[in-house]
Amino acid sequence: MRTFRLVIACPDGVGIVAKVSNFLATYNGWITEANHHSDHQSGWFFMRHEIRADSLPFDLEGFRQAFAPIAREFSMEWRITDSEQRKRAVLMASRESHCLADLLHRWHSGELDCDIPCVISNHNDLRSMVEWHGIPYFHVPVEPGRKDQAFAEVSRIVREQHADVIVLARYMQILPAELCEEFAQRVINIHHSFLPSFAGAKPYHQASLRGVKLIGATCHYVTEELDAGPIIEQDVVRVSHRDSIEDMVRLGKDVEKMVLSRGLRYHLQERVLVHSNKTLVFN
Amino acid sequence: MRTFRLVIACPDGVGIVAKVSNFLATYNGWITEANHHSDHQSGWFFMRHEIRADSLPFDLEGFRQAFAPIAREFSMEWRITDSEQRKRAVLMASRESHCLADLLHRWHSGELDCDIPCVISNHNDLRSMVEWHGIPYFHVPVEPGRKDQAFAEVSRIVREQHADVIVLARYMQILPAELCEEFAQRVINIHHSFLPSFAGAKPYHQASLRGVKLIGATCHYVTEELDAGPIIEQDVVRVSHRDSIEDMVRLGKDVEKMVLSRGLRYHLQERVLVHSNKTLVFN
Amino acid sequence: MRTFRLVIACPDGVGIVAKVSNFLATYNGWITEANHHSDHQSGWFFMRHEIRADSLPFDLEGFRQAFAPIAREFSMEWRITDSEQRKRAVLMASRESHCLADLLHRWHSGELDCDIPCVISNHNDLRSMVEWHGIPYFHVPVEPGRKDQAFAEVSRIVREQHADVIVLARYMQILPAELCEEFAQRVINIHHSFLPSFAGAKPYHQASLRGVKLIGATCHYVTEELDAGPIIEQDVVRVSHRDSIEDMVRLGKDVEKMVLSRGLRYHLQERVLVHSNKTLVFN
Amino acid sequence: MRTFRLVIACPDGVGIVAKVSNFLATYNGWITEANHHSDHQSGWFFMRHEIRADSLPFDLEGFRQAFAPIAREFSMEWRITDSEQRKRAVLMASRESHCLADLLHRWHSGELDCDIPCVISNHNDLRSMVEWHGIPYFHVPVEPGRKDQAFAEVSRIVREQHADVIVLARYMQILPAELCEEFAQRVINIHHSFLPSFAGAKPYHQASLRGVKLIGATCHYVTEELDAGPIIEQDVVRVSHRDSIEDMVRLGKDVEKMVLSRGLRYHLQERVLVHSNKTLVFN
Repeated sequence: MRTFRLVIACPDGVGIVAKVSNFLATYNGWITEANHHSDHQSGWFFMRHEIRADSLPFDLEGFRQAFAPIAREFSMEWRITDSEQRKRAVLMASRESHCLADLLHRWHSGELDCDIPCVISNHNDLRSMVEWHGIPYFHVPVEPGRKDQAFAEVSRIVREQHADVIVLARYMQILPAELCEEFAQRVINIHHSFLPSFAGAKPYHQASLRGVKLIGATCHYVTEELDAGPIIEQDVVRVSHRDSIEDMVRLGKDVEKMVLSRGLRYHLQERVLVHSNKTLVFN
Repeated sequence: MRTFRLVIACPDGVGIVAKVSNFLATYNGWITEANHHSDHQSGWFFMRHEIRADSLPFDLEGFRQAFAPIAREFSMEWRITDSEQRKRAVLMASRESHCLADLLHRWHSGELDCDIPCVISNHNDLRSMVEWHGIPYFHVPVEPGRKDQAFAEVSRIVREQHADVIVLARYMQILPAELCEEFAQRVINIHHSFLPSFAGAKPYHQASLRGVKLIGATCHYVTEELDAGPIIEQDVVRVSHRDSIEDMVRLGKDVEKMVLSRGLRYHLQERVLVHSNKTLVFN
Repeated sequence: MRTFRLVIACPDGVGIVAKVSNFLATYNGWITEANHHSDHQSGWFFMRHEIRADSLPFDLEGFRQAFAPIAREFSMEWRITDSEQRKRAVLMASRESHCLADLLHRWHSGELDCDIPCVISNHNDLRSMVEWHGIPYFHVPVEPGRKDQAFAEVSRIVREQHADVIVLARYMQILPAELCEEFAQRVINIHHSFLPSFAGAKPYHQASLRGVKLIGATCHYVTEELDAGPIIEQDVVRVSHRDSIEDMVRLGKDVEKMVLSRGLRYHLQERVLVHSNKTLVFN
Repeated sequence: MRTFRLVIACPDGVGIVAKVSNFLATYNGWITEANHHSDHQSGWFFMRHEIRADSLPFDLEGFRQAFAPIAREFSMEWRITDSEQRKRAVLMASRESHCLADLLHRWHSGELDCDIPCVISNHNDLRSMVEWHGIPYFHVPVEPGRKDQAFAEVSRIVREQHADVIVLARYMQILPAELCEEFAQRVINIHHSFLPSFAGAKPYHQASLRGVKLIGATCHYVTEELDAGPIIEQDVVRVSHRDSIEDMVRLGKDVEKMVLSRGLRYHLQERVLVHSNKTLVFN
């Protein structure tokens, strides 16, 4: 079922819901899902609607024009998207296959509602798996002393492919600041720890050293500061003294791929709103 | 913060949200929380609002009169309650103390928003604990051959105490059908299994016999059919071959009290809607 | 690291551990993992050791001969296997790809310690995915009225491939009793419910109808009675009124594949012992 | 059933289990539970046995003498305790009642196998609750500028009461280093975050600020460095943007009390072994 997804953030006040729902009712909009949230601390209001596209007399552009006065009145930050305009997700990976294989399978079986124009990797290991899915594979090695050229190439591909979102499926390289900025809130990373614990390198080693009883993974938007961007989704799994670091790596993989796929799904469905370095997820 | 809780169920259609939110906006109602759900299978629509009481020009009665035309127009089943009119919850227990102690502590520390006019038990074991909390304790023995008299007494007490809800905190006796009917969707039970598995007696023994790897507990509204009423909340805990039935009983207690207290909390805050023997929980 | 896995079940008594560990110590056996369990209800004792193969002066046959007197003395049911003699797991699937893809990826990335001589399916849908992994794919249609022929063919393939274990990765057909018996405790199924709830067909529909708050999956050995065999592993995921049956199916897939892969892993590593239709899992 | 609990840590090697189990078998010791662990990283071996006391010809002292040669031979760090010599646990609390009430109820209902000679608090709020349980309550105010006197008084009470273990049930004060040292691995704290995230003050505020999707609690042995001691047990609960800091505090309470009671139970049953600032928990 084709829907329009209307996502709104604005200073809280009386009458916002009434105005928006009146607008939708006036045009006979059939709301299939609605979520609201008033953040009492910041005084902001957040809202997400899914509306059957065939119930409205507009296309997206028409909606935007008709709704603009309301948006202005309440100083809204807002967007409306069409569920049938599939986002273009460029996946980036390194050598580890678990997250990439998981995303590709979900996409292939119709569970992930996006196009995957290509996969970019700094290694060649996963080419055959990607190409079996009919997806182009770009091998862009990232060599010490030649990182600038590598990321210039990455940027070129990402733009050429009209990426809407970049997914770092255990890419293991730090993207340059310009790219993060250009794709603000559109670069999704999976970090293999329960942040803010164990940011940076070798989180499972850190976890083993500290003797934690649960390990986790964190899906977050990438910002300039490493592993410090807004968290979209997290989960954990129990470990014990019986689990070596290798066991943790293995157990963690399952958490990583679950968390990344959930986070990406929320993003693709416009369920994630970012406010003051935190997310609201309307799921 | 004092709120009014407006809970609505009606056949789905265009314009319901607009009508309700317009109504609220017209009277300057400050919505602190809003939840909607369209059930595509049944074609019903469900809605819950919390509105700051001091933002509205009504008391409950005034609200009811003003809102009645909208309710009629959309054939709504609805209710509105005042967060400051605390529900009166009569607790019933047998000999096991864990659920009762948990509820009493939550109430005593201000976490459970209700009054507890009394506790009724078929045993005298828990009297001192209850009375320490300043709550009257009624000992109503349920003896074979004299069950009718016992439950007549229970009914008398429940009515005399103006109970809004009856909580079976491991009461271990089956309430008579008339009482269940009189308090339809207002008798809350905790069953010590993950229903529909292991209904009836000795669920941990059943679980042990079947060799399940997780055991659970279920909070549900009581209906005439044993352990078959609408489920409000459930949870589970992992067990293994190392856990004897006694271990399961012990581990299960923690799940039981968590699940019961969550379920009761949802009920007290008018977060639970019942539809075709299932619940929606707006939490 | 190559290990021998010694698994023992016998009536409990004094001196068993001493006898076994003396035996191992006499031959300088380096124990890397040891698990014991006394079942107080049945009076049985269970034990599993992993011993570095290079620390022992035996091959498997030599071990068996040397250990036989002890096994006789304590009326042991026992087995010893070599971690380097990889089990041959024949996978069977229908049209749903999630469990099969998950197992294949784990195998391909070295996480599942077995050989996969072939995949058998009653449909042709998953052939290309399987063959990309370099694994033969047998399409054995199961048509009404011709089931006997189909399963004769399945049996033939399974024997020809010297299968040690058969994994029903959402195969959706009931295996004939003879095959189950021949492969007793060696046919592993994933059922898409938290058994014993919702055995049989369309468990997610049953779960939705009953309004449970968690759905699950169960990995079990197949016995003649449908969905009633010894449970190896289970897990659950939370659902709510917002989740349609389609959502449950999607959420359930993740639980199914996690539970099946964990169950299979336990089986391959000789961690599962069956006793009176229940399992002990030494993990 | 009265048991002896034999806990051993020593450098790993061949023949340890054989020697120990031979020793037990020689004296007809009936092992009811046995756990072993070889830590491949450190090269240490850990072992815990429960043995029916009535199956052995010793009392504790006799056991110690008979076992000493084996302990010397393998350079064991070891202890043996009697399940009927209940540990004396001094509980310390501040104003928050949830952890204390939970422990007291578990103790009162026979679930916690210890004596509670007294409760010490820097406030008087919880006196009545404690005294209802028949337990003495010491009010030792901790005033700025007079901390030394306060903790001298605490130390005096703890010694006078022959405490075996001190449980900080949300005590909210930092114990002096001498006391921590005197009771090394015998002071158990519950910290209201998933350590190492959010050590120190106001962890729920920190968690809210960072926007994590799960909050947790950590039970650990107290060492000189704040919130950095060996972790005994941890758990988490899911939160979302809908949860205010107050909601997190409420949800966190349930995790805190579960985690603390599990950790304390493991300690009381001699299930916890500390090695290089981490724990092994044989549960």
